[in-house]
Amino acid sequence: MNDRVPVPPARAARVRDTTINLTHGSGGRAMRDLIEDVFVSTFDNPALAALEDQAVFPLVSLAAHGDRLAFTTDSYVVDPLFFPGGDIGTLAAAGTVNDLAVCGATPLFLSCGVVLEEGLPVDTLRRVAASMQRVARAAGVAIVTGDTKVVERGSADKLFINTAGIGVVRAGLSISARHARAGDVVLVNGYLGDHGAAILVARQQLALEADLQSDCRPLNGLVAAMLDACPDIHCLRDATRGGVATVLNEFAQASGVAIRIREVDVPLREAVKGACEILGLDPLYLANEGILVAIVPPEDAARVLAAMRAHPDGRQAAAIGEVEPGPAGLVVLHTGFGGQRVVDMLVGEQLPRIC
Amino acid sequence: MNDRVPVPPARAARVRDTTINLTHGSGGRAMRDLIEDVFVSTFDNPALAALEDQAVFPLVSLAAHGDRLAFTTDSYVVDPLFFPGGDIGTLAAAGTVNDLAVCGATPLFLSCGVVLEEGLPVDTLRRVAASMQRVARAAGVAIVTGDTKVVERGSADKLFINTAGIGVVRAGLSISARHARAGDVVLVNGYLGDHGAAILVARQQLALEADLQSDCRPLNGLVAAMLDACPDIHCLRDATRGGVATVLNEFAQASGVAIRIREVDVPLREAVKGACEILGLDPLYLANEGILVAIVPPEDAARVLAAMRAHPDGRQAAAIGEVEPGPAGLVVLHTGFGGQRVVDMLVGEQLPRIC
Repeated sequence: MNDRVPVPPARAARVRDTTINLTHGSGGRAMRDLIEDVFVSTFDNPALAALEDQAVFPLVSLAAHGDRLAFTTDSYVVDPLFFPGGDIGTLAAAGTVNDLAVCGATPLFLSCGVVLEEGLPVDTLRRVAASMQRVARAAGVAIVTGDTKVVERGSADKLFINTAGIGVVRAGLSISARHARAGDVVLVNGYLGDHGAAILVARQQLALEADLQSDCRPLNGLVAAMLDACPDIHCLRDATRGGVATVLNEFAQASGVAIRIREVDVPLREAVKGACEILGLDPLYLANEGILVAIVPPEDAARVLAAMRAHPDGRQAAAIGEVEPGPAGLVVLHTGFGGQRVVDMLVGEQLPRIC
Repeated sequence: MNDRVPVPPARAARVRDTTINLTHGSGGRAMRDLIEDVFVSTFDNPALAALEDQAVFPLVSLAAHGDRLAFTTDSYVVDPLFFPGGDIGTLAAAGTVNDLAVCGATPLFLSCGVVLEEGLPVDTLRRVAASMQRVARAAGVAIVTGDTKVVERGSADKLFINTAGIGVVRAGLSISARHARAGDVVLVNGYLGDHGAAILVARQQLALEADLQSDCRPLNGLVAAMLDACPDIHCLRDATRGGVATVLNEFAQASGVAIRIREVDVPLREAVKGACEILGLDPLYLANEGILVAIVPPEDAARVLAAMRAHPDGRQAAAIGEVEPGPAGLVVLHTGFGGQRVVDMLVGEQLPRIC
């Protein structure tokens, strides 16, 4: 009786809708077409093209990169979706790459889970996916698995992205927030606060003549150069929400040491400094998306700093302070005026939905 | 001058707020306290307690489980958060465990990224985290890394969760949607549609006397028993959004075969059948969260079926059809009345936010 059964129509090659609707999250044909059209074609790799619900890789291919697996995740809810220097897609790729890089891992694979609000223009999703792929390619990672959900209009704000990441840690490294020792030197790789300031500009909460751009970028190349110069980096973390102040507090608490930094040595653009003064914000708490804090043994500090300055993502690197034996958990800033003040963890909320 | 610097106050042991506010997503102290109080204490494992931004594991510990790494992700936006038989937390843990299990992987690690709406009761989050941990423990996986974002009231609907998962595939397996062969037998492990029907009841779109419960559960134990019985399982997939019909279509398309199923052999509760008749829904498209479809060689079918029925999550397992050489991509249902109809992929949206 087979001849009486009609053959199903050929698959659509491309999504025809211009906006997202609930069928795009149904699990059925419309979702499959959206995924193939927007994600599979953009993220272009065999693992994703197989359209299985998981990506699979030989363990031996991982072992070539080191001896430990690193696994991390971040959700991205930045408002607005597009801002000077980046968008939610560049953030979603770079942010998770950076969380892998700062534990000494070579980032290899990303996942991409999106929650879409009904009514989102499909072209917005295309632009964001293209941004993710651009960053992923620059960082040498592949976006290998994903998921798409759609919620009714008003149940989410346009587009949220979650990325999880897998990397492999180089053998012999021992980077941890607990490893800061008295005498160690505190390094940063460039200007603080550009991302936070760029978001303020994008929200029109700040009218600046200056061309402020987010520093959003993958840092795995920079970290690799730093580790080549000094495999004995003690602490390393990217300073996103909560800024450099929060990372320093985390290091001081986890290591049971004090950290002393010098305001005069903290790299800061004049435009960001001015914006902070006008708005009463502290640049040490401003979010960054391309800034890391490293704590290194004093004998290696000059070599690491030189390696950072020789890398495109570390041209403005600086030594901003030192680790002291105690009081445990304390971070102190020496101000330009010769005074000092405690730099506590961020207590309130500086800027919601910064990333 | 150290003695003049005040020591920061001791950390709060527990979140005092009863509802989520924007500071819980700030990256600062309130977020850290929420994470420690709700997630670290509930998910209880050393990787998470270290409060690093990533979890790290020796590759050799993975190699004990097989030879390939599996990586998957899903976001969960189910409405309502709590429903008969489960909640968004049980879904978020079981769903990702199942995506790993059905490629033959032993699930090992989960991530947990939450997007919280300002105003969400903290106790809701505690309940959901406890559900995740209960399922994770039952499945033998650890929730090892996470992320917390908060958006303003009205920018998300209460709580979304993303989980990504890592597992290791047993050596020697070759499960793929492309591996169905003419003559293979189609198996399911139990009643279809319980999850979809339970969500309808929870939304009060369906007033049923019957005690309908979601089938939400981790299936890795069942899959392990099936693979012990037959390492040569050809296709395996959990039938979530889009239901069993969608999975069968995916298999038929990917393998270039036809699949013929018999309505009379499809396990279906009377209550679900009745609900579908009243609402005009097709149970083959109803979402499941504890149902898988397996395609196995004919000579192994009886052995796999027996192994399924011997497992608590496969008591109602049944052989529901066979694979035929063609027409490629076609799925046909033989109805109870002796007719047949094409079972196409889901074209519209049956029930939004089912998972």
